[in-house]
Amino acid sequence: MEGVVKMKLEGIFAPIPTPFDDNYELDLNALKKNMDYWLTTPLDGIVAAGSNGEWPLLTYEEKIKLFEACVKYAGGKVKVIAGTHCPSTQETIALSKEAARVGCDAVLVLPPHYYKGQNTQESLKRYFFELADNTPIPVVLYNMPANTGFNMDHKTVKTLSEHPNIIGIKDSSADIVQICQICKNTPSDFNVFAGSGSYFLPSLAVGCSGGTMAVANIFAKPCKEIFEHFNNGDIKNAQKIQLALVDINQAVTKRYGVPGLKAAMEIAGLYGGPPRPPLLPVSKEIREEIKGIYNDFKNFYEGGK
Amino acid sequence: MEGVVKMKLEGIFAPIPTPFDDNYELDLNALKKNMDYWLTTPLDGIVAAGSNGEWPLLTYEEKIKLFEACVKYAGGKVKVIAGTHCPSTQETIALSKEAARVGCDAVLVLPPHYYKGQNTQESLKRYFFELADNTPIPVVLYNMPANTGFNMDHKTVKTLSEHPNIIGIKDSSADIVQICQICKNTPSDFNVFAGSGSYFLPSLAVGCSGGTMAVANIFAKPCKEIFEHFNNGDIKNAQKIQLALVDINQAVTKRYGVPGLKAAMEIAGLYGGPPRPPLLPVSKEIREEIKGIYNDFKNFYEGGK
Amino acid sequence: MEGVVKMKLEGIFAPIPTPFDDNYELDLNALKKNMDYWLTTPLDGIVAAGSNGEWPLLTYEEKIKLFEACVKYAGGKVKVIAGTHCPSTQETIALSKEAARVGCDAVLVLPPHYYKGQNTQESLKRYFFELADNTPIPVVLYNMPANTGFNMDHKTVKTLSEHPNIIGIKDSSADIVQICQICKNTPSDFNVFAGSGSYFLPSLAVGCSGGTMAVANIFAKPCKEIFEHFNNGDIKNAQKIQLALVDINQAVTKRYGVPGLKAAMEIAGLYGGPPRPPLLPVSKEIREEIKGIYNDFKNFYEGGK
Amino acid sequence: MEGVVKMKLEGIFAPIPTPFDDNYELDLNALKKNMDYWLTTPLDGIVAAGSNGEWPLLTYEEKIKLFEACVKYAGGKVKVIAGTHCPSTQETIALSKEAARVGCDAVLVLPPHYYKGQNTQESLKRYFFELADNTPIPVVLYNMPANTGFNMDHKTVKTLSEHPNIIGIKDSSADIVQICQICKNTPSDFNVFAGSGSYFLPSLAVGCSGGTMAVANIFAKPCKEIFEHFNNGDIKNAQKIQLALVDINQAVTKRYGVPGLKAAMEIAGLYGGPPRPPLLPVSKEIREEIKGIYNDFKNFYEGGK
Repeated sequence: MEGVVKMKLEGIFAPIPTPFDDNYELDLNALKKNMDYWLTTPLDGIVAAGSNGEWPLLTYEEKIKLFEACVKYAGGKVKVIAGTHCPSTQETIALSKEAARVGCDAVLVLPPHYYKGQNTQESLKRYFFELADNTPIPVVLYNMPANTGFNMDHKTVKTLSEHPNIIGIKDSSADIVQICQICKNTPSDFNVFAGSGSYFLPSLAVGCSGGTMAVANIFAKPCKEIFEHFNNGDIKNAQKIQLALVDINQAVTKRYGVPGLKAAMEIAGLYGGPPRPPLLPVSKEIREEIKGIYNDFKNFYEGGK
Repeated sequence: MEGVVKMKLEGIFAPIPTPFDDNYELDLNALKKNMDYWLTTPLDGIVAAGSNGEWPLLTYEEKIKLFEACVKYAGGKVKVIAGTHCPSTQETIALSKEAARVGCDAVLVLPPHYYKGQNTQESLKRYFFELADNTPIPVVLYNMPANTGFNMDHKTVKTLSEHPNIIGIKDSSADIVQICQICKNTPSDFNVFAGSGSYFLPSLAVGCSGGTMAVANIFAKPCKEIFEHFNNGDIKNAQKIQLALVDINQAVTKRYGVPGLKAAMEIAGLYGGPPRPPLLPVSKEIREEIKGIYNDFKNFYEGGK
Repeated sequence: MEGVVKMKLEGIFAPIPTPFDDNYELDLNALKKNMDYWLTTPLDGIVAAGSNGEWPLLTYEEKIKLFEACVKYAGGKVKVIAGTHCPSTQETIALSKEAARVGCDAVLVLPPHYYKGQNTQESLKRYFFELADNTPIPVVLYNMPANTGFNMDHKTVKTLSEHPNIIGIKDSSADIVQICQICKNTPSDFNVFAGSGSYFLPSLAVGCSGGTMAVANIFAKPCKEIFEHFNNGDIKNAQKIQLALVDINQAVTKRYGVPGLKAAMEIAGLYGGPPRPPLLPVSKEIREEIKGIYNDFKNFYEGGK
Repeated sequence: MEGVVKMKLEGIFAPIPTPFDDNYELDLNALKKNMDYWLTTPLDGIVAAGSNGEWPLLTYEEKIKLFEACVKYAGGKVKVIAGTHCPSTQETIALSKEAARVGCDAVLVLPPHYYKGQNTQESLKRYFFELADNTPIPVVLYNMPANTGFNMDHKTVKTLSEHPNIIGIKDSSADIVQICQICKNTPSDFNVFAGSGSYFLPSLAVGCSGGTMAVANIFAKPCKEIFEHFNNGDIKNAQKIQLALVDINQAVTKRYGVPGLKAAMEIAGLYGGPPRPPLLPVSKEIREEIKGIYNDFKNFYEGGK
């Protein structure tokens, strides 16, 4: 496979929420409406069935339907990355093949994580190499220790980056030294993505080529501007937006999670809808708090124009 | 529902491994053979599709088949508890109903755990109460922070213990103060089980009525003797067995996990078979180490007779 | 040194608070009053300048004064163990010699813990062996990971237990499996002590010979009764007291710390006094809460007579 | 105190190791030699008796001698910051006054950390405000959770930053989101310093004005070039040095600690000497490894010229 050039991933990707109706059923019409909006923004791609997409709460069949709808509604205008991690190797491979079949551009896959003690370098290598060997579309690693309780360190990532069909990583560890070491030690065509809008600019500073961030669902433009300012050497303006963006991004991730993101979607005039149980919607008080943080950012951003 | 008396759970339960053949397919014949052996031991019950049963690696349909086979092979001689936790509330309820339909005695259910930040008391209460309201057989809570990264504290357990169809907890936290507080603060008909053979006697000392322990798959008799010595006030002999048992129990749980347990099953002359990928079998060296620890305990135990 | 028999430690030890006056100066008169009370109880020993004794907040000279006063006031009726850990090896040895000089029975010493990464087995062995070689009185290990952020595991303890002048451990890790493994793997004359009243009975069940517990400062008698009931095989009554004791012990340790213990001392009619800054006294509300917990236990205990 | 302008801290500070002779005694001649070298580099300041200066292993009197010598040898050419944290408030104030008396420019002070549970916002505020009120020179906060086991979050730092004599923070948490939030939420004259060379550039990107980094003891020039490239908008060259610098900085901090730093000092031709026990020198093998990492960076850096 020498000479293979890995697909380039760069810019801003939104890890989209999965819309449910009031009976908690998949609502593809609502998805269509949101996608129509996202296509008017400078987003470069979306991630379907990631952590923000409630992947653990979707059935296998629902995920395929979701991937298919995303590809169709995106219409080739943004990349579609499918979250296909399942606990067993065989199910992950099967679902990844389905993602390829319906036209997704790549799959995003967590390390196995329930049996933490057994996650040796050897076990991780077999899991990801077997997957990469058997999936027609590229594999992107997904490190998310806050949810999985397991961190893929930079040595493991280096080993995995050597496979021609493993093209990058979304690192949501918030560990900037680790991100720096991954950027340093992996080949130059291996795509390293910040996994959150809360440390996007620092990640660009150490060599990331883009980011996947919850806040991009509602504020894609300022995210893209951080990216462009940085690339133009205008670090001062990139910094201004990054500092302003921290609070709203934290509110829709670490602090209030998917329910917070869905509330923010509604505040922004998009479709949010209920999270699927056991997740609960945010309370009225928290919704008001998110509204305040949302407006603070909006005022900063529009005032700065 | 006042006046309802909760089902009594006591004694020794084995969290059985799920047998796979060389193609990693469910092997119910192998299960039958193991069950025939277990029925010759003083086991009081088994847990199917628990952590030792590789629940995350089984499909929904496989779990139903497994539960059905367990009930059939157990023939009413030991209790059968079904591990039915799924990430979404609706799937957990559906699978629990299946477990009831095929004749299981109770279900064992983890707290939701992927979205840790959203696990409020309110969310946990709704998840478990909705489940308990909708499941014809009793619900046993299952606290397993080493795997889930989330601990159910004693206040949460107290709240949940008030539901008439939530009859107990298997606490695998190894937190003896927490187990003590649970025993103290829950009603007397709420069954508190030690989740590991490594702290079975200490758990009995603070009020547990039994334990679910990996080592009981291969050494049910000494486990039962700890229980009986304790109940007879013969703490000295209970202590001797407990101290001897720690090493082999740690080896087939914390240290080498399900692969270690499956190796020990084979060393004991039972069916082990391969774990399902991404889990890997233990290496030759570790198998030899487990054999040594196994024999140490065996020699102690048979020498003591 | 073969043939040396290690000093026996057993029963109930109180880790006494260090009394300060309103100017935060050492108040030895208040110590005398408290000691007069403790000598009326079935306490077997005291620990001076332990964590409950605010050792980090005392100067080197104050500790020597405190040890001297404790020995004098104890008058040989209870054992006096001196907390002599200092960050550097040389200061720990020097202070331990002072403790010996003024008549303490043993020293209680934490592992070095600021530079966690450098705490190898080799480094710990040198620290404790050099100390044990150079101190005229016996050394007791003190494992307190909640404060130090560093745990001494059972293998390290086994290695250290082989030195003839290291006679035991106070394990405050609350890790009952570790305590079980220490009891199993160390020589029979090595004294293993539970480091808290919250898991005293479970620790006895796996082989401990006593405990050092904050609650013994105010309720030494019920602590001693747990010990005696256990030794008499009357586990039911030991259990009753243990379960009742958990709340008050947690309140004066994990929950409200030294300030909580000093408040409880005052509630019990003893001298408490202010903790030394940066520690702050508990608020009025917390003092009332502790009073409630104190009275709950008192009512249980006196009602049971 | 309105209208007070806080002292500006910017650029590169080295947390210097404390030299000991072969008897582990303070070696001020060796300090003089090292300082003469440092004065030839573009260092902006030094920190004496920080974590790299083995502060916990120095006596109170040794620290005063060390501060005095640093001020004398520095001769006003670089700022001298004194690490004056002691566990009790009164000792910290007393030592800080001594630091002021001998001419240090500021003090660097950890939060109290042994009694973690009692570190409320109120307690931290009193500790630092009382210190700042009573110390003639400015106070710099020092957050070092890897050693202390306690993190000062951005809300606490915001509160503390409002005191006119608390002029900044050295944040060694490696938590880039927290550093971002501190930069965002504190006044513009509050100095935020990266606490490690492993994330210096990302920290500048979110608004830090400098860094204190172990690697600056041996490679001050490239550290300063990161700072200057960044300020000139030449992020590409800043990034190149940052990525190259990660390995050697990790080796002399997280991986091999003070013993690793002292070995690297010797490799660089400076005085290293032994760490004070219980710290042990690195093994021959690790010294060789550090030499390799040292040379890798040197070759990169000189090759790039």
